[in-house]
Amino acid sequence: MTSGPGRLRVGVLASGRGSNLQALLDASARPGYPAEVVLVISDRERAAALDRARAAGVEALFVNPKDFGDREAFDLALVREFTARGVGLVCNAGYMRILSVAYVRAFAGRAMNIHPSLLPAFPGLHAQRQALEHGAKVTGVTVHFVDDGPVDTGPIILQASVLVQADDTEDSLSARILAEEHRLYPEAVRLFAEGRLEVVGRRVIIR
Amino acid sequence: MTSGPGRLRVGVLASGRGSNLQALLDASARPGYPAEVVLVISDRERAAALDRARAAGVEALFVNPKDFGDREAFDLALVREFTARGVGLVCNAGYMRILSVAYVRAFAGRAMNIHPSLLPAFPGLHAQRQALEHGAKVTGVTVHFVDDGPVDTGPIILQASVLVQADDTEDSLSARILAEEHRLYPEAVRLFAEGRLEVVGRRVIIR
Repeated sequence: MTSGPGRLRVGVLASGRGSNLQALLDASARPGYPAEVVLVISDRERAAALDRARAAGVEALFVNPKDFGDREAFDLALVREFTARGVGLVCNAGYMRILSVAYVRAFAGRAMNIHPSLLPAFPGLHAQRQALEHGAKVTGVTVHFVDDGPVDTGPIILQASVLVQADDTEDSLSARILAEEHRLYPEAVRLFAEGRLEVVGRRVIIR
Repeated sequence: MTSGPGRLRVGVLASGRGSNLQALLDASARPGYPAEVVLVISDRERAAALDRARAAGVEALFVNPKDFGDREAFDLALVREFTARGVGLVCNAGYMRILSVAYVRAFAGRAMNIHPSLLPAFPGLHAQRQALEHGAKVTGVTVHFVDDGPVDTGPIILQASVLVQADDTEDSLSARILAEEHRLYPEAVRLFAEGRLEVVGRRVIIR
């Protein structure tokens, strides 16, 4: 992959298949993209995300939650690993653990999450199923900064809408939302790397 | 306006300027539109909505809340007026009172509301301001059936998204949402009049 002294160093937390990680890895490989993923950490040893990282020549690290006494001790280990690599932004990509306040504070204003709904609608798990069960006709995707509030509450960086179709299943809707996720997450990281995001209260202003 | 024996007779409740009422009146005047507004009721004597109705040759009625002992008695008067005109659908268009359970039950499955957000996000008053203060990048409009839950909870008929722009004020955002409201409300009434809406639990299936 392309490397450069001026590029933002990005760390990624992933628990699963890592398709959003792949979108960030692909973006990192594009000429002129101002950020590069330098470390992927997973709390699951067999996460496909780790294989994706290795395949892209990016360091992949399994950190075992069982090696730590509590969530905060585990999270502080993540902070140490990212910090040791000079990471300037951390991105959750299908990371299935709640982050402790200590982690969020360590990366205040430098941690992003992506969520498969138009927040504040349908926070938490199974957002696509929630949207279907609610009978929503429009849902979408949100990239937001992570804050120390409840789940999925931080300042919103980018959103895109996705229409719910009459015959949608959870899978078909998730697939169309995922396509938007793969477009939006690299774009949000690019804006951050270019210094174009300013947080004013709850609002993210794009310069 | 065009009248016809087979057209759905629509009643409208409005408290204010009635721009959504105007969209329904304009639709009623279009050849082939399967519904017609036959009665507009306002709880405010000077509501511009009443003038709009009269200008379109539609009966306009001021019903004074002060003439009734409580909300339910007032609402039952509204039910009587609509029922006496053979109304098959009632639409809130900027109606600023909470509807009593008695009203909602009388028109169960035959009462619609329009709300300037993508519900369930930003229910209640000042939805556009809520969206701006939350820092949402996408908001929109929802037409839904009225149910006897809390405010703005009924099954969703149609939604459309509206992008929040960086320099949006409450007024500029409201204006763009309103343009979508004027498009969506007549469309929802048309689908209802054509018998194409089926409510299954919380979901509205469009046939």
